[in-house]
Amino acid sequence: MARAHLAVIGGGQLARMMQQPAIALGLRIRLLAEGPDVSAAQVVADSVVGDHTVLADLEAVTEGVSVVTFDHEHVPPEHLRALAAAGHAPRPGPHALLFAQDKGEMRERLTALGAPCPRWAFVESGEDVAAFGFPAVLKTTRGGYDGKGVWVVREPADAEALFDEGALAPGVRLLAEELVDFRRELSAQVARRPGGEVVRYPVVESRQADGVCAEVVAPAPDLDPALAEEAAALAERVATELDVVGMLAVELFETQDGRIVVNELAMRPHNTGHWSIDGAVTSQFENHLRAVMDLPLGPSRPLAPWSVMTNVLGGAVTDLEGQLPVVLAAVPHAKVHLYGKAVKPGRKVGHVTVVGDDLDAVLADARRAAALLTDG
Amino acid sequence: MARAHLAVIGGGQLARMMQQPAIALGLRIRLLAEGPDVSAAQVVADSVVGDHTVLADLEAVTEGVSVVTFDHEHVPPEHLRALAAAGHAPRPGPHALLFAQDKGEMRERLTALGAPCPRWAFVESGEDVAAFGFPAVLKTTRGGYDGKGVWVVREPADAEALFDEGALAPGVRLLAEELVDFRRELSAQVARRPGGEVVRYPVVESRQADGVCAEVVAPAPDLDPALAEEAAALAERVATELDVVGMLAVELFETQDGRIVVNELAMRPHNTGHWSIDGAVTSQFENHLRAVMDLPLGPSRPLAPWSVMTNVLGGAVTDLEGQLPVVLAAVPHAKVHLYGKAVKPGRKVGHVTVVGDDLDAVLADARRAAALLTDG
Repeated sequence: MARAHLAVIGGGQLARMMQQPAIALGLRIRLLAEGPDVSAAQVVADSVVGDHTVLADLEAVTEGVSVVTFDHEHVPPEHLRALAAAGHAPRPGPHALLFAQDKGEMRERLTALGAPCPRWAFVESGEDVAAFGFPAVLKTTRGGYDGKGVWVVREPADAEALFDEGALAPGVRLLAEELVDFRRELSAQVARRPGGEVVRYPVVESRQADGVCAEVVAPAPDLDPALAEEAAALAERVATELDVVGMLAVELFETQDGRIVVNELAMRPHNTGHWSIDGAVTSQFENHLRAVMDLPLGPSRPLAPWSVMTNVLGGAVTDLEGQLPVVLAAVPHAKVHLYGKAVKPGRKVGHVTVVGDDLDAVLADARRAAALLTDG
Repeated sequence: MARAHLAVIGGGQLARMMQQPAIALGLRIRLLAEGPDVSAAQVVADSVVGDHTVLADLEAVTEGVSVVTFDHEHVPPEHLRALAAAGHAPRPGPHALLFAQDKGEMRERLTALGAPCPRWAFVESGEDVAAFGFPAVLKTTRGGYDGKGVWVVREPADAEALFDEGALAPGVRLLAEELVDFRRELSAQVARRPGGEVVRYPVVESRQADGVCAEVVAPAPDLDPALAEEAAALAERVATELDVVGMLAVELFETQDGRIVVNELAMRPHNTGHWSIDGAVTSQFENHLRAVMDLPLGPSRPLAPWSVMTNVLGGAVTDLEGQLPVVLAAVPHAKVHLYGKAVKPGRKVGHVTVVGDDLDAVLADARRAAALLTDG
C-alpha cells in the first residue's frame, strides 16, 4: 500500500464520510479502526485495527504520515502530545482539542473570552448543587455525548443521589449549568486552516429528541440576521482563539429572550453539518480534509434555499440496505446515507438529506424518507 | 470481510467514482482490480487482483455476489454468458453489452431500429473503401477508444496502407463510416433499471481535443429544444430496445444542417456525465448503482443552470495532489477529482467541475483549474 496522505483515528461514520471527498481529492486515508468491519473500515482500503487509547497503536497507524485527524475526541491528550513531539501534526492539536474533550476547561476558557455561556460552576457535592440552585443541569466534564453523562436535577435529593458512593466512576468531575429556557438549538460551524483562514457555514437549527439530534434545518428558519451574524462570528472567534484546525461546531441555545449561549463545542465534522454533503458547494467533510491538509478552503454556499437532514436512528427496520427500494421509491430525490452499522434501538445508523425551494415540502420528504428507514 | 452487495469488474476511475455513492447507500463493492494499487483499488476495502479476461478470476470475485457491473466494456461476452448461466446478474447483460463492444453490431442494430447513423459499411480491402467513397472514417469494430483504432482516410493510398499485411492484428474487422460534417458533439445519457424505468439526463455538449473528450458543458448551450428532445428520446429508445441496465451514453454528432446522428454507444458511466457528480441531484454514478441494483432511480435535475466539466490530461504536473494548494487557491469552488493514477502525457488523470449561473464564468473557472493541474 502506497504512502497515505493522512491518518484518521477512529472508524465511525464521520471517518466514513471523510472518505468520499478524500476519493475526489486523491487523498489517501490510513485508518485506525476499532475492528476490521467498523463503519469506515468497510470503505477505506488502508486500515489498521487498533485502540486509540494505546500509544503504540497510534504510532503504528501514523508511521510515515504527517497529518493526523479524528473521527471523535477521545484520544488521550498525552498521546496527542507524544505524536506531536514525534513530528506528526495532530489536527486539531491537543491544546485545542482539550476544550472539546473537557467541558470544565471549555467553560473556563469561553468565560475568559467573554463568550456567552449559561451560568455554571464546578460541583463536588449535593450541597454545592443546592448552593448553585435548582433546576440545574449536571454534566460530567469528560466523556458525555448524545445526552449521556447529562442529568437535569430539580431538587436536592436528585443531586445528592448523583454523589452517592459508586454512582459516579472514580475521578469523574461534575459541572452544574443553568437550565436554559431556550426557544431552540442552533449550530454554528466553521472550517479553519493552520494559518488562520476561516470559512463560516450558515447557522442551522438543530432539533433534538431524547437528547439526540433528530433533524437539522439549514439555514435556521426565521433567524434574526443579527443573531445569525453573532453566532457565526462567535464560532469564528472561538476557532481562532482556541487555534482549532479542521471543523468546529459551536452548539448554541437561542434563548426565549433572543440571545445565544454556548452549549457545547465539537472539533470535527458534526451531525449538524451533514446537510452540507448534499446541500453546499463544499461539504463539512471536504473542508475538514482541506483544513487539516492545509489546503485552501472551499465556499460553504448552499446549493438550494433549504436543506433538511434527518437522522436515521435504529428502529424496527434491521436491514437498512434492504429497505432502499421502499425509501427511494417513496422519495426518489432523498439523499440517503447509511453508515454500515448494525441496527440497535436509537443508534445513529444513517441520515437522509433533502434539498429544495419549499421548506415544508423538504421537511416532509426528509421525515418521510427517514421514517421509512426507521419504522418501515 | 462481509458479503458484498455487488461486484465491479475493473479498477479504473469509473469504478473509483462508483465508490462514493456506494458509501452513501451502504452498498459494499467487491472489486476485480488489474493490480493492488490501481485507481479504484486505492479506495475500495474489498478488492481482488485478477484479469477480466480470465473466467476463473471473474468467478472468484463474484462468488456469493449476485449483481455484477463494469468499469469498462472489455469482458469477453462468453465469460459474461458463463456468469449469467451460473446465476449471476451481469448488468448490463451480454446481449446488451455486445452493442457497446462491437461497432459493427451496433451499426447493424441501430440501422435496423431506424436510429440516425452516418452512412456506413463493412470493408475488407482498399477497393471496398474506394467503393464506399472518400473521405471516410475507418474504425476497428472492437477495442478502439479515445481516438485509438480510428483513422480518417482521404485517398486510396491511405486506405490500402491499412490493409497491408501486418498493419492490422489478425481477426480485426473494419467499418467505414461517412466523415460527418458536424457542428459539434453531443451526448445523451439515460439510466435504466431491469424493469424498464428510465431517467434521462440533460443532453450535453462534448468538446474534443485530439480525439479525447476535453470539456463538457451541461446542458448543451443553445441546443434547439426539439433536437434535445429527439436526442434524449433516442437514448431512451436505444436503452429500451437493447435492454441496457445501468447507464447508457449515446454520443452524437449535431450536423451542420441541424440533425443528430449516432457516433458511439457506451454502457457504463461515461466521461460526458462526470459533471453530474457535482451538478445534478443524482449523479450518473449513483444512478448506475441504483439501476444495476434494481433500486428506484433518482432525478437528474441540475443543481445550477450550468455545469462545466474539464478533463485533466497528463501534462507537466506530475504530483497532482501536490498541486492542490495552487488550484484550490485559484478556484476555491472548483470540484477537483483526481484518479490516483500515474501521470503520463495525455492520460486522463482527473477532472474538474464548476457549477454556476454564468456560463462564461463557469467555463473560465473550470478551464483555469484544469490548466493548473495539467500545465502548472
